[in-house]
Amino acid sequence: MASNGTTGTAGTPGTNGAATPTHRFDPSFTQHVLDTMGPKTTERNRVVLGSLIRHLHDFAREVELTTDEWMAGVQFVNAVGQIYTKTRNEAHRVSDILGLESLVDEIAHTIVAEGKLSPTSSSILGPFWSPHAPFRAAGASIVQDGVPPGGRVAKMHGVIRDMVTGAPIPGAVFDIWQASANGKYDFQDPDNQTPNNLRGKFRADEHGVYTLYCLYPTAYSLPTDGPSYQLLTLMDRHPMRPAHIHIMVSHPDYLGCTTQLYPKDDPWLAPYIFLYPKDDPWLETDTVFAVKDDLVVDFTPLEGDDKATLELVYNVTLAPNGSQTKV
Amino acid sequence: MASNGTTGTAGTPGTNGAATPTHRFDPSFTQHVLDTMGPKTTERNRVVLGSLIRHLHDFAREVELTTDEWMAGVQFVNAVGQIYTKTRNEAHRVSDILGLESLVDEIAHTIVAEGKLSPTSSSILGPFWSPHAPFRAAGASIVQDGVPPGGRVAKMHGVIRDMVTGAPIPGAVFDIWQASANGKYDFQDPDNQTPNNLRGKFRADEHGVYTLYCLYPTAYSLPTDGPSYQLLTLMDRHPMRPAHIHIMVSHPDYLGCTTQLYPKDDPWLAPYIFLYPKDDPWLETDTVFAVKDDLVVDFTPLEGDDKATLELVYNVTLAPNGSQTKV
Repeated sequence: MASNGTTGTAGTPGTNGAATPTHRFDPSFTQHVLDTMGPKTTERNRVVLGSLIRHLHDFAREVELTTDEWMAGVQFVNAVGQIYTKTRNEAHRVSDILGLESLVDEIAHTIVAEGKLSPTSSSILGPFWSPHAPFRAAGASIVQDGVPPGGRVAKMHGVIRDMVTGAPIPGAVFDIWQASANGKYDFQDPDNQTPNNLRGKFRADEHGVYTLYCLYPTAYSLPTDGPSYQLLTLMDRHPMRPAHIHIMVSHPDYLGCTTQLYPKDDPWLAPYIFLYPKDDPWLETDTVFAVKDDLVVDFTPLEGDDKATLELVYNVTLAPNGSQTKV
Repeated sequence: MASNGTTGTAGTPGTNGAATPTHRFDPSFTQHVLDTMGPKTTERNRVVLGSLIRHLHDFAREVELTTDEWMAGVQFVNAVGQIYTKTRNEAHRVSDILGLESLVDEIAHTIVAEGKLSPTSSSILGPFWSPHAPFRAAGASIVQDGVPPGGRVAKMHGVIRDMVTGAPIPGAVFDIWQASANGKYDFQDPDNQTPNNLRGKFRADEHGVYTLYCLYPTAYSLPTDGPSYQLLTLMDRHPMRPAHIHIMVSHPDYLGCTTQLYPKDDPWLAPYIFLYPKDDPWLETDTVFAVKDDLVVDFTPLEGDDKATLELVYNVTLAPNGSQTKV
């Protein structure tokens, strides 16, 4: 059992998250909690949950967490789960605005490339991917419900290649999903969109080429009616994601690539250019921290195609199975 | 925006939670997340949420958290909130089994005593205190619904004193609550207990004395049907709390004391004494880490009182307002 807290060694409160207990609280408490783990804990659970508990305790001691702040945290966690529905994963969103999904993505996808080669950068999956997206014919459109107000259609195509040999990858699957011009995905927007609108899978041809039609993407706000927005407000942060298209490219012989593509300049913001000197201000401060330099792309005007006014050429590079190692 | 993750500096993964980034991941990522906090964040929120984010990221990098583990965590948080009801605060319980409430209690109640004096040790509130407990007359019983099967009544009394002067504190309020012999509190057990059974407030007399009748407490298990129990199972930990009585003692001129009292030996376990060499095995491994040495008490047999067969004398020492300081 813990000794009386008043007997703890005095010291300087830690200020930078160092693990060395230089605080004035019971120095044996955290180890006691860890020691209650039994012999049937798996080694991985012991490591992960042990580290989680140590960091949780170090956090509380470092900031000298108050009872009211702790209780606010308890109520926050309860509120996150209470707002959960099949189409609203609030815990996923909270982890995103804290940067955790992007960090886990980086950890998972650290690729040791051969020579100077790099595969296409990965980015976070986000909560809007669907396992039910249909395969569509090469050159088909994912704009299933017709072009929405404010929407502009883009022709998107490119080659999917092997990172090492540069050879095309016939049969690779190119899965794409995006929000509509109102910033909502199909299952968030049942009044305006049918299921699988703006979603689709395309199979690369014998030259590794995919071709499809989609919308020029739209920047949007995360929902502002729940705990994740309350958390953003506490941090004086905006809830905006830059305009983006989600893709997931896969083939049995290659490491899959889940990522997002961001237009460099967004015509939607043109009237406000005097306020925003950068092309798309949300690129720098994406509220889920999913932007990487090599995922920012240029859409160009397209002529002679009666189905689209813009074009995006985007080639994807996949790493062969076995490329992903931990150094 | 973050640079491509593959350009991160190689290094040795941290193993002990040190803040120095000796890992092989993007060394600027966490600072970038922190830098998105705006100027209207309060200084305290910046410190607390900043530390929380740094520790969350350090944890993920230290254990190289996998996508599946992260998603299990997301689903765990959603599940915690989904099981929340007015009478079941699962996030509170999870924070307890991780030791967080006990740690926050220690942080809050670090008292700088004058000379060699110490107030009664505090312990955690837990999720079962009620603001609706009625005042009862001096010497009354909180066993409102009659003695339950297996229950034994104890007479409990003592003096509430000033930590510095030793003088009694007339009018101090002694609030007590406890589980019944089946291990359940009134609002967990509507079939067997009426509201406020085994709860009550007592006002100390002019000599600082309180007197009441209660049950000898019973060890019990936390609920085993929710996420908190799943977490205990992952750690190969038991869900037991040692037998205990909750008290909250207050007076306007003193720092309130919320604490718990634990019988040293529990007759309920006597048949198993060959298995458990200690008096109450759960004292050492209380699943919410709330036991402190000076809160372990001796009940003694009582004769000549037709309302009780046991007696507990327990004196409380309160620190005057202003005693609680941060060194």
